[in-house]
Amino acid sequence: MYKLVLIRHGESTWNLENRFTGWTDVDLTPLGLEQAKNAGRLLRAEGYDFDLAYTSVLKRATRTLWHVLDEMDRTWLPVAHSWRLNERHYGALQGLNKADMAKQYGDEQVLIWRRSYDTPPPALDANDPRCERSDRRYEKLKPEEVPLTECLKDTVARVMPFWNEAMAPAIRSGKRVVVAAHGNSIRALVKYLDGISDADIVGLNIPNGIPLVYELDAELKPLKSYYLGDAEAAAKAAAAVAAQGKG
Amino acid sequence: MYKLVLIRHGESTWNLENRFTGWTDVDLTPLGLEQAKNAGRLLRAEGYDFDLAYTSVLKRATRTLWHVLDEMDRTWLPVAHSWRLNERHYGALQGLNKADMAKQYGDEQVLIWRRSYDTPPPALDANDPRCERSDRRYEKLKPEEVPLTECLKDTVARVMPFWNEAMAPAIRSGKRVVVAAHGNSIRALVKYLDGISDADIVGLNIPNGIPLVYELDAELKPLKSYYLGDAEAAAKAAAAVAAQGKG
Repeated sequence: MYKLVLIRHGESTWNLENRFTGWTDVDLTPLGLEQAKNAGRLLRAEGYDFDLAYTSVLKRATRTLWHVLDEMDRTWLPVAHSWRLNERHYGALQGLNKADMAKQYGDEQVLIWRRSYDTPPPALDANDPRCERSDRRYEKLKPEEVPLTECLKDTVARVMPFWNEAMAPAIRSGKRVVVAAHGNSIRALVKYLDGISDADIVGLNIPNGIPLVYELDAELKPLKSYYLGDAEAAAKAAAAVAAQGKG
Repeated sequence: MYKLVLIRHGESTWNLENRFTGWTDVDLTPLGLEQAKNAGRLLRAEGYDFDLAYTSVLKRATRTLWHVLDEMDRTWLPVAHSWRLNERHYGALQGLNKADMAKQYGDEQVLIWRRSYDTPPPALDANDPRCERSDRRYEKLKPEEVPLTECLKDTVARVMPFWNEAMAPAIRSGKRVVVAAHGNSIRALVKYLDGISDADIVGLNIPNGIPLVYELDAELKPLKSYYLGDAEAAAKAAAAVAAQGKG
């Protein structure tokens, strides 16, 4: 039996400011930093240990991982970064306020952008200064691999090769894996692992900074999964995520 | 022409307490943390950028690297850890106070332990609780690869395979490399690069947290090398290192 631990980064400055973030590289808030440390302390207290860590190329996830590893006294563990674990790209909405958008376009439209499985938000223009195609960390990708917007379906499509080519082989080889990533890249993994439908996955919220443990069988099928620590706190945190963007 | 940047970790708690550290995994002091951040700010201000970072499996070097990368907005860069970049193992002296040892054994004996090229300090007993052989981070090594003590000659011998097999090929492939490591693992690299004699290398002190830049030709022979930033500050910091362990 294998164990896999998924952690959504702690609260970010734009979570706090209620802005669409996507691939924008914002940092953790002081609360987010505490959430990250708590996740590490909890994993350590519960006797977890790891051989390999994955994270995105965004600093809110990387910093979350660093704090987790630090609290576990595992600063020396190998860490692999992949853009495939990045948050869903939020297109032209990146940087804009969720409540403002709700006022301007209505709750319903914003909910579609936030929660439709296959309708992406309006795309960024490739010449928009917010476009990431000139960012050094994506320079080895084909331009068309760097999205201008994504629906969750698109995010799932680019996360899955990382599962198939990196994560699953590592887990099968016996490596104990921890992933610090984002709401939607974790949704993609959860959708696959639990076989959740397109309709249902958009209603599933991943709380910040609470380790989500999967126990997997030899075929990497989930035997069970659970949040570590206080279940009520996890539910509350997930509800807080769901409530964002309400006018 | 290639550039390689070497950084000794910032001041550690045992640098401050004047204790022999070696492979003991002590953390940075607040000053050490500031030195690390300053190194990152300096590299950024001087227009340096990197593709790959190496560090040891000890947290004072890893944390130095993390702060450097953070200040350079390069938290997403690949980082490879190797035990071969660890500090020189200080044997049975690890944890003991340098001034106490000088009082007990005399300045001359301590100077031999600290500065002889080929006389190691007394070895740790393999059953000593300070012995690292049962530490998870070394579990894939052969027991005899995990030292019980080292003279600088031993450190050079275990650093060089890492240069030959990892660093040199990466640099030759065009990767811009930064290394956050330790006084003696950096000495090993400097000895090799500059062709310094066994007698002279022991008198060369590497200051904490000041980037040491090597410009290398196509054969990876140094064209020149220099500390970044204030040369006087670098000389002072090196003199402070040299003065440690005096009664």
